[in-house]
Amino acid sequence: MNRSNQDKFVIIVAGGKGLRMGGDMPKQFMLLADRPVLLHTIEAFHRYDSALNIVLVLPEGQKVYWQNLCTDFGFAVPHKIATGGETRFHSVRNALALIEKLLAAKTCPSDNALIGVHDGVRPLVDRHTIAACYEQAELARAAYPVLPITDSLRKISQNGKRAQTVDRTKYVRVQTPQVFRADILFAAYRQPYDPLFTDDVSVVEAAGTCTPVMIEGNPRNIKITTPIDFEMAKMLINIGIK
Amino acid sequence: MNRSNQDKFVIIVAGGKGLRMGGDMPKQFMLLADRPVLLHTIEAFHRYDSALNIVLVLPEGQKVYWQNLCTDFGFAVPHKIATGGETRFHSVRNALALIEKLLAAKTCPSDNALIGVHDGVRPLVDRHTIAACYEQAELARAAYPVLPITDSLRKISQNGKRAQTVDRTKYVRVQTPQVFRADILFAAYRQPYDPLFTDDVSVVEAAGTCTPVMIEGNPRNIKITTPIDFEMAKMLINIGIK
Repeated sequence: MNRSNQDKFVIIVAGGKGLRMGGDMPKQFMLLADRPVLLHTIEAFHRYDSALNIVLVLPEGQKVYWQNLCTDFGFAVPHKIATGGETRFHSVRNALALIEKLLAAKTCPSDNALIGVHDGVRPLVDRHTIAACYEQAELARAAYPVLPITDSLRKISQNGKRAQTVDRTKYVRVQTPQVFRADILFAAYRQPYDPLFTDDVSVVEAAGTCTPVMIEGNPRNIKITTPIDFEMAKMLINIGIK
Repeated sequence: MNRSNQDKFVIIVAGGKGLRMGGDMPKQFMLLADRPVLLHTIEAFHRYDSALNIVLVLPEGQKVYWQNLCTDFGFAVPHKIATGGETRFHSVRNALALIEKLLAAKTCPSDNALIGVHDGVRPLVDRHTIAACYEQAELARAAYPVLPITDSLRKISQNGKRAQTVDRTKYVRVQTPQVFRADILFAAYRQPYDPLFTDDVSVVEAAGTCTPVMIEGNPRNIKITTPIDFEMAKMLINIGIK
């Protein structure tokens, strides 16, 4: 199949209200090297492929703030906005509804499109990881980056009092972007919400239609959740350790 | 039982040759805020309790370097040296042999002593974590610090090609110090070596003599394994985020 005209999308999920950071500023808007975190994130995908269709998911109450931010920073990377939902699952589902409309308008078959989903608060994602996820998703229908577990890992017993050692080499921790062929992702998100859906791979696997493949992630691609994460992101962006 | 005269030990394991950092310098000797990592680590325990008996485990080939380092930095915290072994298990076992001799010389019963084991490359351990581990070990015979898993976690299938989502709230990642009543730890380390012994709690649990209790760890208490960890430690020590 000739995929040279293939439509590629990325959904950047920035639904978080940033409560864990303390204070009022959602973490996706905090300044990293003088620019809001979300600008770095969107630019990383735009640098990978300027033809990539970018859909940003924001809570309703942050849309005006975002528009003003784009103006203030002269941010001109084209993107669409979808509205955040109650959970990450609902946010992604809203973005997928928007993408389905865009594809229908283009009369582009959804099995000829790829959709990535990425955490808005992972601004340091590198071009190699993005490229590898889209390339592998084209081959295998679904691909996502993982890293080994470096700490000792223990599984807690049912009563929560005890724990037992597990073999950490049997586990991986998961990053984003997670990239899927569009028809696979649309079908998976027609399932009812389950609290065990912590990321998109878990949603797709629950649908049982394909087996996403793992690719090697990058330790730089951190998720900014706590103040320590934010300081680490500032450090990484300054010194450029690979 | 009156434990006011209780003997307390800590084994600081610095057996690593630092290969993962690249270069020749073992990471325990790298300079953090102008002092070698190991000096920070030892000082953290000395600040907690100046009567604590400190046993440092070093590879044979690093002992002279260490003595020179202590001289150069005017480092005067009293400590004994044990010799590193082939794995962490063998290093700790060597340190325990030294402690058994020290206790025998004092005619101190080993059930009235507590022994902590701590990674030499965790220089940012805080006083509260150290105190909590020793206090809980006195009550429960064994205690260790843990943190929740924040990334999505997946378990890899037997062939290594697939993975399935697991509930990350059922898992914890493990830090040090891990503190034990001496008799428990001596008995556990009489077991033959098993590659699944990734830390001291796993050794003690395999012996089946007690159930170590978990206490809440501290995200600052990072283990310096990679160049990124080292930069993060520098950042944490500079800005003092709790």
